[in-house]
Amino acid sequence: MTPRTLLYAQSGGVTAVINASAAAVIAEARRHPVQVGRVLGARHGILGVLAEDLVDTAGLDDADLAALAALPGGAFGACRFDLDAPADNPAQFDRLFDVFAAHDVGYFLYNGGNGSMDTVLKLSAAAKARGYPLVCLGVPKTVDNDLVGTDASPGFGSAAKFLSTAMREAGMDLRAMSSQRGRIFVMEVMGRNCGWLAAATALARQAPGDPPHVLLLPEVPFDPEAFLRQVEACVARIGYCAITAAEGVRSRDGKLLAEQDEDALGHVQLGGVGQRLARLVHDKLGYKHHWAVPDYLQRAAGHLVSATDRTQAEAVGRMAVDYAVQGLDAVMPAIVRESDAPYRWRVEPAALGPIANAERRVPAEFIHANGFDLTDAALRWLRPLVIGENPPAFRDGLPDYRAPALAPVARKLATYPR
Amino acid sequence: MTPRTLLYAQSGGVTAVINASAAAVIAEARRHPVQVGRVLGARHGILGVLAEDLVDTAGLDDADLAALAALPGGAFGACRFDLDAPADNPAQFDRLFDVFAAHDVGYFLYNGGNGSMDTVLKLSAAAKARGYPLVCLGVPKTVDNDLVGTDASPGFGSAAKFLSTAMREAGMDLRAMSSQRGRIFVMEVMGRNCGWLAAATALARQAPGDPPHVLLLPEVPFDPEAFLRQVEACVARIGYCAITAAEGVRSRDGKLLAEQDEDALGHVQLGGVGQRLARLVHDKLGYKHHWAVPDYLQRAAGHLVSATDRTQAEAVGRMAVDYAVQGLDAVMPAIVRESDAPYRWRVEPAALGPIANAERRVPAEFIHANGFDLTDAALRWLRPLVIGENPPAFRDGLPDYRAPALAPVARKLATYPR
Repeated sequence: MTPRTLLYAQSGGVTAVINASAAAVIAEARRHPVQVGRVLGARHGILGVLAEDLVDTAGLDDADLAALAALPGGAFGACRFDLDAPADNPAQFDRLFDVFAAHDVGYFLYNGGNGSMDTVLKLSAAAKARGYPLVCLGVPKTVDNDLVGTDASPGFGSAAKFLSTAMREAGMDLRAMSSQRGRIFVMEVMGRNCGWLAAATALARQAPGDPPHVLLLPEVPFDPEAFLRQVEACVARIGYCAITAAEGVRSRDGKLLAEQDEDALGHVQLGGVGQRLARLVHDKLGYKHHWAVPDYLQRAAGHLVSATDRTQAEAVGRMAVDYAVQGLDAVMPAIVRESDAPYRWRVEPAALGPIANAERRVPAEFIHANGFDLTDAALRWLRPLVIGENPPAFRDGLPDYRAPALAPVARKLATYPR
Repeated sequence: MTPRTLLYAQSGGVTAVINASAAAVIAEARRHPVQVGRVLGARHGILGVLAEDLVDTAGLDDADLAALAALPGGAFGACRFDLDAPADNPAQFDRLFDVFAAHDVGYFLYNGGNGSMDTVLKLSAAAKARGYPLVCLGVPKTVDNDLVGTDASPGFGSAAKFLSTAMREAGMDLRAMSSQRGRIFVMEVMGRNCGWLAAATALARQAPGDPPHVLLLPEVPFDPEAFLRQVEACVARIGYCAITAAEGVRSRDGKLLAEQDEDALGHVQLGGVGQRLARLVHDKLGYKHHWAVPDYLQRAAGHLVSATDRTQAEAVGRMAVDYAVQGLDAVMPAIVRESDAPYRWRVEPAALGPIANAERRVPAEFIHANGFDLTDAALRWLRPLVIGENPPAFRDGLPDYRAPALAPVARKLATYPR
């Protein structure tokens, strides 16, 4: 057989470890020269495939790959773009397969979340329908841990480490500043529909009663009176209160607390919950109020990655290539937990059908009966994911991030009208 | 002579290195047993003196002091409380000196910013007027670098390191996500009247054209049209734009952009600028918009302190004690810069008269003619302050902060009515 091209792309919100997956894909692909020829990337996900905007990874040496693995952001660029159903837009699929054919792509690896897994399924089905030999796999990634079918999503552990560190540190500042009764701090974290990151900030506690004192998860309908009672009781006890709020917190009728700006896909671009909650407390209870919105900081914190998370990001990148050369199609490498402490895990292929477009919420058994805290089971589950440090090299006081030079691949096709 | 008590307290917004100053004060005081007897702390600043809420540092061993030096927040608590003029409130000063006398305080060290330096001056004058032998000194500290008379304020370099790291990392995320033209990111940083922290984020750039692309300083009257033109030009050039905005950004008439909640001192509690600016860009130019508000995170980032900053925080703590035992009154140890590169500095006593309540703005020669960037002179000045890493020990994936046990000192006086 002649080796086929492996095409890799990144999709959705990027994380602090997605480039570790990318580096692992490239390194592993090089270990299969019989089946894999060129290893290309598409810039900005599936949009790059459509635009035939491809880059060649051949020029990256081992030092480049090590540097790539340490980079936050997405070195190949990403996009939020869903393919149409093939029946609705055959021209889109004609184009995709023209690009695949022009570059002899035999393996397509898409590094993203639940929406990206749907893209993989569509491509897999289309390839079969067209008789084009193509193995399509997902490489799991998602900062808010909402991917079904894997123990934790690569990207989550590092964001959890950053946010729980932030809550521990900010909590110490809050306590120092609380000389007069009534000061609150709200930290707004990512989590469109799922409270995994908000939950993870509970790891900040070193002793009972440490910050955070109140967790607001999208899974729990927001009850303003109950919330204010929690806060008031906390302030009465210790003089201050630290709150973590997921951006997707919503009321019982399902309406999001945050102001809403809809994008073209009908996705609500969230933000503003932290400030709203802080103001609510200030207006109703009179306490001084601070709020933090880490935003990109929580998922780009390459200076504070979780070594466990990074190891898993590399494992799924490596195993995706292994599965690809075995011809496993429409699957993703999934982390399977064997034990909590010590944390043992393995990687297995997971079929994408149940995964694409599904969402993994924080289960009821992880949420305390009062709705504002976690159970011990949740903490046991979360603890291993933030373990281990893997700091970058520093230069002139800042992390020395070195992005690889990715050589553009000459186009073979006409420009694709967008 | 019999040794006198040294009383130390923290005041104003705390930083990632104020406890390093505290540990240095305690350690240095122990080296002067002829002049210094007990080394006490007041809890929550001058409020703790009034309340006779004191703690004894005698129980802290060297390991405790090392742990203290690595803690963010303020281990002794802080306050925002200005003393009245002695003529206006003699009872307040009667109480302060009753407390001093009851514990034989001969040295008072107040670790804070420009408002705290005014407290020191008031106490120094009152001591003289009453004939009470007391040496009063300030120990400089301020996260937004607005203290006059010292090269940089301890606390600033670490916050600058955190924020420029954040901008570098978030900028990489922003670039990855910018597949379709027009995405902006605004990071709102501390800086009530001074743009030092906003300016410092320029250190994030590794190459010309790197984030941040636009800096908004309080020193430059905000011109919405000029700002939007800058952003639009940047997006036209590269497809995205990263902006740092100081919380105290204001328009030409002096009005703050942020929503305002005034506290009892008429201080405006700031916040909301980042969101407002992001929305302005979204509304006028249609770009997708993200904003981050690090809030406490930027001044509590013990996991990412600047070694240069921490060294200076320790030096001023140590020298404050040295000056105290020499009888130098109404001064603070100030950093004096000798050269930029290599960064050489020394510590000298600075009289507090010109420092108390004064503010140090970013000078015109540091601000680019266009108002949205810095000059080379500014970058040369800023660069050394973020150099060096001093990470804490980690445990279970988070920084292992260990707060010292501070033994309360038995009260000798009646309760002070507040």
